[in-house]
Amino acid sequence: MTQHARPVLMTEMTWPDYAEALKGDPVVFLPTGTLEQHGPHLPMGVDHMLPLAICADVARAVGGVVAAPVCYGYKSLPRSGGGPFFPGSVGLDGGTLSATVRDVIRELVRHGIRRVCVIDGHFENRWFLNEGIDLAMRDAAGRDLHVMCLQHWDFLTPDTLAQVFPGEYPGIELEHAAVLETSLMLHFHPDLVREDLIPDNAPADAPPYDFWPARRAWVPEEGSLTTARGASREKGALMAAQYRRDISAAVRREFGLDA
Amino acid sequence: MTQHARPVLMTEMTWPDYAEALKGDPVVFLPTGTLEQHGPHLPMGVDHMLPLAICADVARAVGGVVAAPVCYGYKSLPRSGGGPFFPGSVGLDGGTLSATVRDVIRELVRHGIRRVCVIDGHFENRWFLNEGIDLAMRDAAGRDLHVMCLQHWDFLTPDTLAQVFPGEYPGIELEHAAVLETSLMLHFHPDLVREDLIPDNAPADAPPYDFWPARRAWVPEEGSLTTARGASREKGALMAAQYRRDISAAVRREFGLDA
Amino acid sequence: MTQHARPVLMTEMTWPDYAEALKGDPVVFLPTGTLEQHGPHLPMGVDHMLPLAICADVARAVGGVVAAPVCYGYKSLPRSGGGPFFPGSVGLDGGTLSATVRDVIRELVRHGIRRVCVIDGHFENRWFLNEGIDLAMRDAAGRDLHVMCLQHWDFLTPDTLAQVFPGEYPGIELEHAAVLETSLMLHFHPDLVREDLIPDNAPADAPPYDFWPARRAWVPEEGSLTTARGASREKGALMAAQYRRDISAAVRREFGLDA
Amino acid sequence: MTQHARPVLMTEMTWPDYAEALKGDPVVFLPTGTLEQHGPHLPMGVDHMLPLAICADVARAVGGVVAAPVCYGYKSLPRSGGGPFFPGSVGLDGGTLSATVRDVIRELVRHGIRRVCVIDGHFENRWFLNEGIDLAMRDAAGRDLHVMCLQHWDFLTPDTLAQVFPGEYPGIELEHAAVLETSLMLHFHPDLVREDLIPDNAPADAPPYDFWPARRAWVPEEGSLTTARGASREKGALMAAQYRRDISAAVRREFGLDA
Amino acid sequence: MTQHARPVLMTEMTWPDYAEALKGDPVVFLPTGTLEQHGPHLPMGVDHMLPLAICADVARAVGGVVAAPVCYGYKSLPRSGGGPFFPGSVGLDGGTLSATVRDVIRELVRHGIRRVCVIDGHFENRWFLNEGIDLAMRDAAGRDLHVMCLQHWDFLTPDTLAQVFPGEYPGIELEHAAVLETSLMLHFHPDLVREDLIPDNAPADAPPYDFWPARRAWVPEEGSLTTARGASREKGALMAAQYRRDISAAVRREFGLDA
Amino acid sequence: MTQHARPVLMTEMTWPDYAEALKGDPVVFLPTGTLEQHGPHLPMGVDHMLPLAICADVARAVGGVVAAPVCYGYKSLPRSGGGPFFPGSVGLDGGTLSATVRDVIRELVRHGIRRVCVIDGHFENRWFLNEGIDLAMRDAAGRDLHVMCLQHWDFLTPDTLAQVFPGEYPGIELEHAAVLETSLMLHFHPDLVREDLIPDNAPADAPPYDFWPARRAWVPEEGSLTTARGASREKGALMAAQYRRDISAAVRREFGLDA
Repeated sequence: MTQHARPVLMTEMTWPDYAEALKGDPVVFLPTGTLEQHGPHLPMGVDHMLPLAICADVARAVGGVVAAPVCYGYKSLPRSGGGPFFPGSVGLDGGTLSATVRDVIRELVRHGIRRVCVIDGHFENRWFLNEGIDLAMRDAAGRDLHVMCLQHWDFLTPDTLAQVFPGEYPGIELEHAAVLETSLMLHFHPDLVREDLIPDNAPADAPPYDFWPARRAWVPEEGSLTTARGASREKGALMAAQYRRDISAAVRREFGLDA
Repeated sequence: MTQHARPVLMTEMTWPDYAEALKGDPVVFLPTGTLEQHGPHLPMGVDHMLPLAICADVARAVGGVVAAPVCYGYKSLPRSGGGPFFPGSVGLDGGTLSATVRDVIRELVRHGIRRVCVIDGHFENRWFLNEGIDLAMRDAAGRDLHVMCLQHWDFLTPDTLAQVFPGEYPGIELEHAAVLETSLMLHFHPDLVREDLIPDNAPADAPPYDFWPARRAWVPEEGSLTTARGASREKGALMAAQYRRDISAAVRREFGLDA
Repeated sequence: MTQHARPVLMTEMTWPDYAEALKGDPVVFLPTGTLEQHGPHLPMGVDHMLPLAICADVARAVGGVVAAPVCYGYKSLPRSGGGPFFPGSVGLDGGTLSATVRDVIRELVRHGIRRVCVIDGHFENRWFLNEGIDLAMRDAAGRDLHVMCLQHWDFLTPDTLAQVFPGEYPGIELEHAAVLETSLMLHFHPDLVREDLIPDNAPADAPPYDFWPARRAWVPEEGSLTTARGASREKGALMAAQYRRDISAAVRREFGLDA
Repeated sequence: MTQHARPVLMTEMTWPDYAEALKGDPVVFLPTGTLEQHGPHLPMGVDHMLPLAICADVARAVGGVVAAPVCYGYKSLPRSGGGPFFPGSVGLDGGTLSATVRDVIRELVRHGIRRVCVIDGHFENRWFLNEGIDLAMRDAAGRDLHVMCLQHWDFLTPDTLAQVFPGEYPGIELEHAAVLETSLMLHFHPDLVREDLIPDNAPADAPPYDFWPARRAWVPEEGSLTTARGASREKGALMAAQYRRDISAAVRREFGLDA
Repeated sequence: MTQHARPVLMTEMTWPDYAEALKGDPVVFLPTGTLEQHGPHLPMGVDHMLPLAICADVARAVGGVVAAPVCYGYKSLPRSGGGPFFPGSVGLDGGTLSATVRDVIRELVRHGIRRVCVIDGHFENRWFLNEGIDLAMRDAAGRDLHVMCLQHWDFLTPDTLAQVFPGEYPGIELEHAAVLETSLMLHFHPDLVREDLIPDNAPADAPPYDFWPARRAWVPEEGSLTTARGASREKGALMAAQYRRDISAAVRREFGLDA
Repeated sequence: MTQHARPVLMTEMTWPDYAEALKGDPVVFLPTGTLEQHGPHLPMGVDHMLPLAICADVARAVGGVVAAPVCYGYKSLPRSGGGPFFPGSVGLDGGTLSATVRDVIRELVRHGIRRVCVIDGHFENRWFLNEGIDLAMRDAAGRDLHVMCLQHWDFLTPDTLAQVFPGEYPGIELEHAAVLETSLMLHFHPDLVREDLIPDNAPADAPPYDFWPARRAWVPEEGSLTTARGASREKGALMAAQYRRDISAAVRREFGLDA
């Protein structure tokens, strides 16, 4: 498909490429995530690698471009990412992440961009992304700016979940380094998955509150919050295809693009 | 060389890989740069792609690891990067960049890291990196933390410069999207250089001060601040080899590593 | 029960009362919420009134004290609170809320408090509370400080939910100004509920992402995100009793109090 | 008087109540104060309880509404509030208080409010309230916004003071937890005053400067900065009546309301 | 007196001079003020010039040194400085002033200074200086640091005031660009006073609250808040002598210096 | 020359003086620098004293006015100012300096100023000044504001350098407390130079990177980064004259003033 030949990553585009793209009034996709432990079998960049790949897929489908990824995100909590117990997890202060998103959007607006879609891959980022976007909207008061923000797993349909989890879906908070992320990585970056090390641990058993200092006992030793057994490249391909279809459709609908 | 087989990028390492690396009390290399126009022939990610590549080279040489890149940096000024006249250049507020560096170092210290080397590829970043490091040192008061910060071109020796610039070296401020960066990109990412579009413009002619709003007339139309003719993959390889040798030597010396 | 006679609200205690309470090494409960529309039938203070009442209940049960409420919270989003479409909803910037929590905890620590439990009643607050607590923990490095943070509805058990929702539980995001909050208000502040105005609207139908500027069509006209029919004082009493029992138990367990 | 039946507290109003009130272009009163020791006989919430009561009185008189109180304020200093020597006094950083006021006013402006009156009850708050208001004015540049800010005791007339202090008026800085506040609390919240514990201490004897770390010797043991003997419910009623009359008059005059 | 020959201004000292002074464990005096209108007869630097002169006097008397002045301060309000109606008045945001004081004290502590005395000449600065000092104390937790902060006029004794104001003392808020400041300038900087332009306006008549946007009618046309007639060099000398004596005594007493 | 009789320093002007000057739509010159060690022979105020003197010279030449100096600046680094090894060097956090410049420019704009020229004397300040100016430009969006920013030594021509350095010019980073600054101080403030103590040390030998904690060995014991021998009043006069001529010309050209 010729669309795939068009450059979509701003990091790889020259400025005349981007100037050319601007003529089409494109949506800019901003991939956000973090650097964080993802069990014994997944690389620590999963949370920004997946959004980057999904952004590229959707940008190709709708004629958009992809900004450079924001590789660092908010602090991991035990209930959703394993917390501070694993070396390698790096957490920004919330204000730092919000400021980054605010600044990047302000600059895109300066280029003439009117539509931004943030695609995030790190559960704990959501509210600091929201805040950065809200502040950018305030900065852009009176200008024509529309911003959409999503975490990719929220697009999974009951139908997809039924195929990925023939048993029960453990819920997204436990899906850290588990079947969803492992399958998607097997699809997008198979060479970075250590399939022989995929863990089969019991699910994390965290109570309905957070606690500081973090409780080690709430988090499985492996770092994955529930078993990743059952992950497969096919499931990853299935999810990626559904993302491409449904996120593209939402982007077209919300930003008023021609189908 | 077997060293190259060892994973050095934290984004690609699992947490047990990193935990294993921590036993060696490694230097962590933090690549910083920005997303910014680099003339008609270079991709906009040059300023973080080169530091990432140099970090990986040096980390392999000295047994270190490389943190995820900080892909966004401080605002481009006309005198050193072309300023706001080119779509695609994205500039964070200074405080946002400093906070990012401060936060990342604080987290590395939490992992047990005692030595960090920031390698930067965007001229305008320097003082906000310095500030982020200084604040991180303050946060880490009483702990054993050492940080080095460099911009790669400052390591070029008179000997190298003589080989790269058989004529006169225009000075680093003009070397934006010019011979140095183009050669290094031809070495590290040849597929991302449009050799047919390498410009041969006259050097920028900026006065000894900055001015707001920025003056368009100070910046060549192409975005490269002086000609990139004369760039070659061989020169890039020469510089990269000298970097690897000399930055590694400096790192070993300053951090007290065994040669 | 004599416990109820003991003053537990710091706003109503004299400093010698509090000094006396300090001898018991008490847990301090910090109620947080916001000022926000809650449909045509509930007052706009629901989100801090309920936590204040729950805090008082639990503090009496475990021998703690209750700090003054934080009456303003983070911005309402359409998906969880109706967004900016209703006059009266007041949203702080995220950093303001985090700073408030950080500062209050720092002062409590100065008094000698070692255990703080934040009980929140506004869905959108969670991550900015987390951040404020994390920063307070950093400030208190080296001191003996433990902090727990919860949103009250996360304590509802399947058993309680089955009694409150004989049909299907719509999920907490839709439970804004709906059966849960209305029932709890009927229990704690019956005089502030306009029972004749309890709405019976269809549930909000929001997609799996956020959008700026907010979409009016995502939010029911009434402001309640789903029907509040079915709310009753008895259900409120049931939930309040379960909160008192289970939050008290969690507090005792996590803070190591004698039962 | 039927005016008293109209709801004036936003915390107790529904959003349609507030929407109805907005049609009258009302003044919004924002009560600010803190949580702070007030001697052995007064509750620690005095500084926000009194402004809340005064706001309600004046709002009823002029047809305004009262926002939720800001219950935490700036740090107590020995010369004006006893300083850090009493458990229970909680002080925000100045920037946190200013940000809260700025944010709340910004949101009120979003609702369509054009007139805000901050009534404060904590001496140390004044300049951080000023700053918050000034920043809100800046945010609202070009909009029709007027803000008034007062500390209630500044409205006391010589005539009232002569009646309250048959002897010499000690000056407002010493009137912490003394005759003024005690009388007003006896009027507004008699059940929260421990009349049997009203202290009769000598006045604080502080020099004309501040000092850090704070000097214990500058502050009476009781926490009240001078005797509260002489306080009475009648004096409180007298002051409250004068406040209602004179603050209402000032509000009408400055905001151009019909009398 | 030989003490006067010793250099006391850090701006005029070399670092070895200062290193020598450090051996005596000196008090560092930090002059703060602003740039602000001071009527038709006084220069706009009065508020930092007077503290600088007073600091030098006291530093000579007690063997201290004087840091460089902070020449910009907080915003002028109509009630105390004439507000925004006069060109030339420059007001920092409160956080900027607090940060400056915090940073300067932190650096002095790094030099080994244990005692700092801030002498201020701008009424509106007080609380932002307090906040800067409080934050510096927090930064210096565990170190031996003592800080004193004063506004010079607070040291005027009833006896001095009786001599300076044979009639009634108008109170310090009105003493902007009036008898006190004019007399002190006639003493310290007679060449900068336009004696022929000393105004004799009626006092400002401001109500007991602040208002935004500022009310022009509250401020006399001249900018001085009450008459400056009656100012004289002799009165300035009298006040300066009392300052030197009493501030020196307070400094010796509070910092435990030998008399 | 009668121009010299006109007052140009805002600190010494009355507000009517400044109001009169405003009629001429003047350039405001803002001197910035710091308080920092300058070898054994120069006072620590050099970095703000020289800009103040140069600003006054240029303001007189072009009919401008000079704002009060910003006496504190960014942290000294070993490579450019000797670093933290000398008592007396005071460094603000970068954000504090940027905020000060931002605030001062915002206030000047409020006065009606449309042209500001920042003249700096402290190498490390540059990027934080840039940032402060950029933020002020953002605040002033839509207003007619032009800002120029320079560090005085960047105006030295090859011709001047040839006369000042008959041998080789060591480069500006080493010219701390050396021939340039010493000569200029001998011209502007001869009484503050200890000519007998002018050092003749070897140049600092710093590598091409920064390091934390700072390396003592990189900095000469004296604090001057290379010899100051060869400084003279005549050289200072020569540089000052060239500054006056060339900075004035640049100011006229950039701001569109009549010659």
